[in-house]
Amino acid sequence: MLSKNQYKFIKSLKSKKKRSEHAVFLVEGVKVVQEFLKSKYNLVSLYSTSDFDYPLDVEVKKISENELKGISSLITPNKLIGVFKMLKPDPIDFSNLVVALDRLNDPGNLGAIIRLCDWFGIKDLVCDISTVDCYNPKVVQAAMGSHTRVNITYTDLFKLLSCSKNVIGTFMDGSSIYQTKLPDSGILILGNESNGISKKIEDVVNLRIGVPRFGKLKQTESLNVANSAAIILSEFIRNSIEK
Amino acid sequence: MLSKNQYKFIKSLKSKKKRSEHAVFLVEGVKVVQEFLKSKYNLVSLYSTSDFDYPLDVEVKKISENELKGISSLITPNKLIGVFKMLKPDPIDFSNLVVALDRLNDPGNLGAIIRLCDWFGIKDLVCDISTVDCYNPKVVQAAMGSHTRVNITYTDLFKLLSCSKNVIGTFMDGSSIYQTKLPDSGILILGNESNGISKKIEDVVNLRIGVPRFGKLKQTESLNVANSAAIILSEFIRNSIEK
Repeated sequence: MLSKNQYKFIKSLKSKKKRSEHAVFLVEGVKVVQEFLKSKYNLVSLYSTSDFDYPLDVEVKKISENELKGISSLITPNKLIGVFKMLKPDPIDFSNLVVALDRLNDPGNLGAIIRLCDWFGIKDLVCDISTVDCYNPKVVQAAMGSHTRVNITYTDLFKLLSCSKNVIGTFMDGSSIYQTKLPDSGILILGNESNGISKKIEDVVNLRIGVPRFGKLKQTESLNVANSAAIILSEFIRNSIEK
Repeated sequence: MLSKNQYKFIKSLKSKKKRSEHAVFLVEGVKVVQEFLKSKYNLVSLYSTSDFDYPLDVEVKKISENELKGISSLITPNKLIGVFKMLKPDPIDFSNLVVALDRLNDPGNLGAIIRLCDWFGIKDLVCDISTVDCYNPKVVQAAMGSHTRVNITYTDLFKLLSCSKNVIGTFMDGSSIYQTKLPDSGILILGNESNGISKKIEDVVNLRIGVPRFGKLKQTESLNVANSAAIILSEFIRNSIEK
């Protein structure tokens, strides 16, 4: 059973403002919570609807199904919900490929991209400050624990890029990733779902790449940004292992 | 203004049973409706909240914002909604790469995969009969008009594969797509979101492939099936153009 204040506090963490104010965020579901518990993220509190037999020395507060429903962001809440402290990001390692996001809007897309970075061993993900919050519960859900292995930094992307070499931008009309020599390091930018990379950032791009369209008609309007990220990261990785 | 019966009928098309019964489905939003109007799909009726100035000789019935809200499946309905007749699929062309889906559940994933097939010029998508309906409004939305360029066939996938050569299955432990000779034709199977390819179908697979996991820890649990499709289709296409 939660006190009125506890309930109100946890529920408030659906809002970015409240998360930032307290520097904490929500993690939901048994599997994902377990990933965060094993990681360097620090637990604040843990709540479960069932007598959760967790091997670690962690106190689990019992809550009702109705309480879980109220504090959860999921349509079908999954037993366990934890409040964790945000992490201060590590310094970015520019000796490897870094992925950067320019004003990404959709939490599902950001979550999928964090998961892809993790899959492909990309250590650093940089988000322009106007990109959706990586601690948004939908992002945490979609990334399925990959936050614990990818270093996510929010910054003024334009400033960062202005003093960088090897700035790689993805564009509909960029040169084919299958026919371009892709570098082993650099900053790879993916743009907003509807508008792509902003003009200001486009101006500091050194290498314009893209996924060519096939088929007789070539009328597909665009690729979803997470699918596009999947294809492009795959090409970078394939190139680096074949060297 | 819709009659009570019209309203009830259009609204009923959110259900698969009703769509099948009448062999029609809903298409929403200006861009996507336009793609279907230009295609070989036949329009049944078209509804709009604004005086829609459409260049083609198409009758648009004016409806209220409230009516649109009632019949739409979108959170933010977009002006135009059309009822179209389903298409009888063309025969499958097995001389090219065919993509097959084994019990895919999520409408967003199916929509994304239809869009990817379109992007990469894959003409045929085969769905096991237990895969989510491709005329589900969320699938139509996510595919963004790609239904008009991809031939989608629902069939008993096991039966089809039992008499096929070159059956390629995607598995977590499949041989690396970067190090496997990928054929130019064959049937490429993607499995269910949680359970992958079913045992029965696994038994008829000739070639087991997968996207290898990178990074020091290799702990990412899995890739989303649409992202996995994006990466694997990209490799097939890259291989075929480099031959």
